[in-house]
Amino acid sequence: MLIVMKADATDVQVEAVVRVIEGLGYKAHPMPGASRTAIGITGNPGAIDPSHFENLAGVAEAVRIIAGPCAVESRRQAFAVAEVVRRSGARFFRGGAFKPRTSPYAFQGLGEEGLKILADIRETYGLKIVSEALDEPGVDLVERYADMIQIGARSMQNFTLLRRVGKSSLPVLLKRGLSATLDEWLLAAEYIMAEGNYQVVLCERGIRTFSQHTRNTLDLAAIPAVRRISHLPVIVDPSHGTGKNFMVTPLARAAVAVGADGLIVEVHDSPNDALSDGAQALTLDQYERLVSEVRAIHEVIAPAPVG
Amino acid sequence: MLIVMKADATDVQVEAVVRVIEGLGYKAHPMPGASRTAIGITGNPGAIDPSHFENLAGVAEAVRIIAGPCAVESRRQAFAVAEVVRRSGARFFRGGAFKPRTSPYAFQGLGEEGLKILADIRETYGLKIVSEALDEPGVDLVERYADMIQIGARSMQNFTLLRRVGKSSLPVLLKRGLSATLDEWLLAAEYIMAEGNYQVVLCERGIRTFSQHTRNTLDLAAIPAVRRISHLPVIVDPSHGTGKNFMVTPLARAAVAVGADGLIVEVHDSPNDALSDGAQALTLDQYERLVSEVRAIHEVIAPAPVG
Amino acid sequence: MLIVMKADATDVQVEAVVRVIEGLGYKAHPMPGASRTAIGITGNPGAIDPSHFENLAGVAEAVRIIAGPCAVESRRQAFAVAEVVRRSGARFFRGGAFKPRTSPYAFQGLGEEGLKILADIRETYGLKIVSEALDEPGVDLVERYADMIQIGARSMQNFTLLRRVGKSSLPVLLKRGLSATLDEWLLAAEYIMAEGNYQVVLCERGIRTFSQHTRNTLDLAAIPAVRRISHLPVIVDPSHGTGKNFMVTPLARAAVAVGADGLIVEVHDSPNDALSDGAQALTLDQYERLVSEVRAIHEVIAPAPVG
Amino acid sequence: MLIVMKADATDVQVEAVVRVIEGLGYKAHPMPGASRTAIGITGNPGAIDPSHFENLAGVAEAVRIIAGPCAVESRRQAFAVAEVVRRSGARFFRGGAFKPRTSPYAFQGLGEEGLKILADIRETYGLKIVSEALDEPGVDLVERYADMIQIGARSMQNFTLLRRVGKSSLPVLLKRGLSATLDEWLLAAEYIMAEGNYQVVLCERGIRTFSQHTRNTLDLAAIPAVRRISHLPVIVDPSHGTGKNFMVTPLARAAVAVGADGLIVEVHDSPNDALSDGAQALTLDQYERLVSEVRAIHEVIAPAPVG
Repeated sequence: MLIVMKADATDVQVEAVVRVIEGLGYKAHPMPGASRTAIGITGNPGAIDPSHFENLAGVAEAVRIIAGPCAVESRRQAFAVAEVVRRSGARFFRGGAFKPRTSPYAFQGLGEEGLKILADIRETYGLKIVSEALDEPGVDLVERYADMIQIGARSMQNFTLLRRVGKSSLPVLLKRGLSATLDEWLLAAEYIMAEGNYQVVLCERGIRTFSQHTRNTLDLAAIPAVRRISHLPVIVDPSHGTGKNFMVTPLARAAVAVGADGLIVEVHDSPNDALSDGAQALTLDQYERLVSEVRAIHEVIAPAPVG
Repeated sequence: MLIVMKADATDVQVEAVVRVIEGLGYKAHPMPGASRTAIGITGNPGAIDPSHFENLAGVAEAVRIIAGPCAVESRRQAFAVAEVVRRSGARFFRGGAFKPRTSPYAFQGLGEEGLKILADIRETYGLKIVSEALDEPGVDLVERYADMIQIGARSMQNFTLLRRVGKSSLPVLLKRGLSATLDEWLLAAEYIMAEGNYQVVLCERGIRTFSQHTRNTLDLAAIPAVRRISHLPVIVDPSHGTGKNFMVTPLARAAVAVGADGLIVEVHDSPNDALSDGAQALTLDQYERLVSEVRAIHEVIAPAPVG
Repeated sequence: MLIVMKADATDVQVEAVVRVIEGLGYKAHPMPGASRTAIGITGNPGAIDPSHFENLAGVAEAVRIIAGPCAVESRRQAFAVAEVVRRSGARFFRGGAFKPRTSPYAFQGLGEEGLKILADIRETYGLKIVSEALDEPGVDLVERYADMIQIGARSMQNFTLLRRVGKSSLPVLLKRGLSATLDEWLLAAEYIMAEGNYQVVLCERGIRTFSQHTRNTLDLAAIPAVRRISHLPVIVDPSHGTGKNFMVTPLARAAVAVGADGLIVEVHDSPNDALSDGAQALTLDQYERLVSEVRAIHEVIAPAPVG
Repeated sequence: MLIVMKADATDVQVEAVVRVIEGLGYKAHPMPGASRTAIGITGNPGAIDPSHFENLAGVAEAVRIIAGPCAVESRRQAFAVAEVVRRSGARFFRGGAFKPRTSPYAFQGLGEEGLKILADIRETYGLKIVSEALDEPGVDLVERYADMIQIGARSMQNFTLLRRVGKSSLPVLLKRGLSATLDEWLLAAEYIMAEGNYQVVLCERGIRTFSQHTRNTLDLAAIPAVRRISHLPVIVDPSHGTGKNFMVTPLARAAVAVGADGLIVEVHDSPNDALSDGAQALTLDQYERLVSEVRAIHEVIAPAPVG
């Protein structure tokens, strides 16, 4: 693991980080470079929780990971996943209580019951909760139990819903529609901001194309494209973006390398039994490996200008 | 810069690399890890030519970069680019002598004259030459002057041409067609291999979708998808894949992060004056920065399994 | 104009139609065929209102046309268009009171005020009113003033809205989403029917593809495809399906020829001044010509089996 | 059946057509209209060969149909289909001797042997022969045996091949590429015309989109779009455009209704046994019905202006 210091970090700040590393029983290797200093860590048996470092003065920000199951299915399942998500150092837990399903006969989520389970996870693990709302009454409920409202791809142009979350005090995660152009996506964000809520995070989750080897085609060029014309943070969902378990980690690495501010990843304690989107969910082990891989890339990418 | 050693590298091999680094006047920081050792280099003023290290015993393989102008326009232009490509440590130089152009009235390339310039670049800089052939007589010429035959996206299903390069002794770079499925792409490779030439390198270069913020939509999920079902190496062309200069480097980073075996990048000494595809060509400076960024990612990615 | 009789029409029924034609001052030409009789009309100065004939015993059903402006902009504009729509023999008038607009700063429709104008048009011209609802309160209003609820392409997977109109006693016009597969479209209809409302009319209005010479790509093969697997009527919107005035009539002809049950067409008394989608609206003259052309095709197509 | 007379046809010309109809034993019904006269034919047991009428003075031109099997498989099969094609009144017979196949292991056509069979069909039935060439030697052979050279979708940007057929004295049927824009298609035609051959017929055959209920998405709006900016005739291939037998006839009707100058249709005497594209080929019976349906539409459409 590398800790990347900000360009203007002082020697005193670097030394403070070294002391924390050594206090944890590991070895620190400060590597001063032309524009910034990185500090290598060795001697650690596995992944290190980055929350030990990220609040120290002078440390550059880490990549944000939002993880969790597609749908909250039961208290047991949600807690099993949350346990691992917390351990990985992620700060956000995502779980669906209201699921937009193509068929009216598919599992539609646990509703308020699911939101209560999520609130308990926040209590227990200190994770911030992200959950999708499909309509105005759903926003009322998500506001009561969660910390961030997700607007899904199918709702990207549900303008009534956009206006409603524009009046919320919670940040909004706005997924790109399956066939949305960049303009349409940013104008959807504009609907939210026009009501006064400027806390919008964009999420690229794949577009619909002729290409059928993935569920959707992840359009990673959207990240530098958005950067050029918007100040909004943009994250990537490699789970819906590919629909296939074995592709999630490579595309998560690519997302961080292209300059995304974060990731949203589906994790399930038993993907084969998942009631929704099991084929793309990571196992707990796969998820922990993903976190350490994307952190390694983020560390070398951090100072790279995108535009 | 990090030099990544193979998992089975010996202490003696690590020391040999350290001595080479110090012999170049830089400082070496060996960092033994759980599965392998990496050696940090500091004290260098700019990018270091990795060819100093990559033939040393125990050093893991580097990412392959094929760079050069879209079209060879003149001896002066081609040599100016080749000079920088050589310095960056790339081993392959790509330049078009026969250009497939949408309009019959656009610049069609210098033809054999261009190939002679490329052969002189090989002579002068020791770079291997990659050039596109559009038809059977073109293959005859490319075979005479170059080291690798490129089959462009528009020719991916030119079966007569595929059979012809299948009889060549040169390796073939097979670009994915604009609307080709994975099956069609691999079956095009099969046309080449069915004639006895197994040296096929696949190249993802973007597909055509509704999304118009890029020239094409780079389908990076194709890399792990190909890995799953084929032994063929696969590289990525972020220049045609985006069509926009400012996106080339981020997408090149993403391509390496997703697990591509290499990159093909357009570089021009004066992109604004380019006769073909200038808007996407990197300047020489941008290219050198790209090389150092993708190497950094490759180093942390190298041991990561893709599938 | 041809009046097509049903296959089992009796001689008495044919004679009755001839008498109606002659009563209008035109000349009737009965043409008995192998499977059915058609009656040609000559001597008419312009288009003939088919409502003179379509309720007569033995006459085969006409193509259904829903026409009107994209948005109701003013009483004057709506009445000017309605006048022509009535004269053309159409039975349905479509006008938007709530407009889903990509930008929050674009004209969003007159709301309830617009619905009141539509209700007055029903009163004055006897036309049935079709209008779009974007959310549940919108459905309440459309139910109060109109005869059919339109669910737009962007709302095709707004499942809360689908469930709400599933509880309505009005028929629902369900447009296909921009990137919806056939399955997704039919399952959206299933959401409505699962609540008890079986009066669903599907509407193909173009899909999003790489092809940019039209606003959308009208997928006319969806008509026979839907026929194969569903009993629901399906109509075509050549206005949104092309986005270009000069293409609307040819594609309307094609839609009827492929077997669509009807058309929905944008008409404006002054397209250049339209507040929404003016570029695709027909002038009143163009609309009248369209009606006579599609009727002519419908007459020769009527007995043709689609599947 | 209706015979449509040109707008400037004289009474004498109308009478001449009536006499031919009556000479064949049928009943003629002249129907003078505002702008032109149509003549209904009754008393015929089945489809009537339009070649009886189309060379008579004053008769408006018929829709051109090119029909035949995807691939020539044997003399027996080709003659069985040609017999029916001739009877239907079509003037052109299409059969593939060189087949571009996605897999190198699929049936690739009979080659020159197939062309000889086609030449015999010309001899026997007086049909003009259309056959595809994949490369320059193929053009030499098609020139020797056929009357029109087809350039397939995969070859639309094979510029060497386009230049070669540009030097031919035969007309060229240029299919649109799977992901070609209108500009690219017309510029491909420009490659042919730049060499001096102005006899180019464009053919829309479907584009590749996310929509998977058909093999390709037939883009019928391309017909009026081409009309607007080019003088070239444009026909439609509903067989490749849909890939499904039951959709061919409805889309053929739509193609004529949208204003196409002709159709190219796959016909096989035993579709289930076809070596190539059997699923989309019409049976001989289906083909005869298609011809009569599209003629009926052409008759009502003929005087309709497209733009």
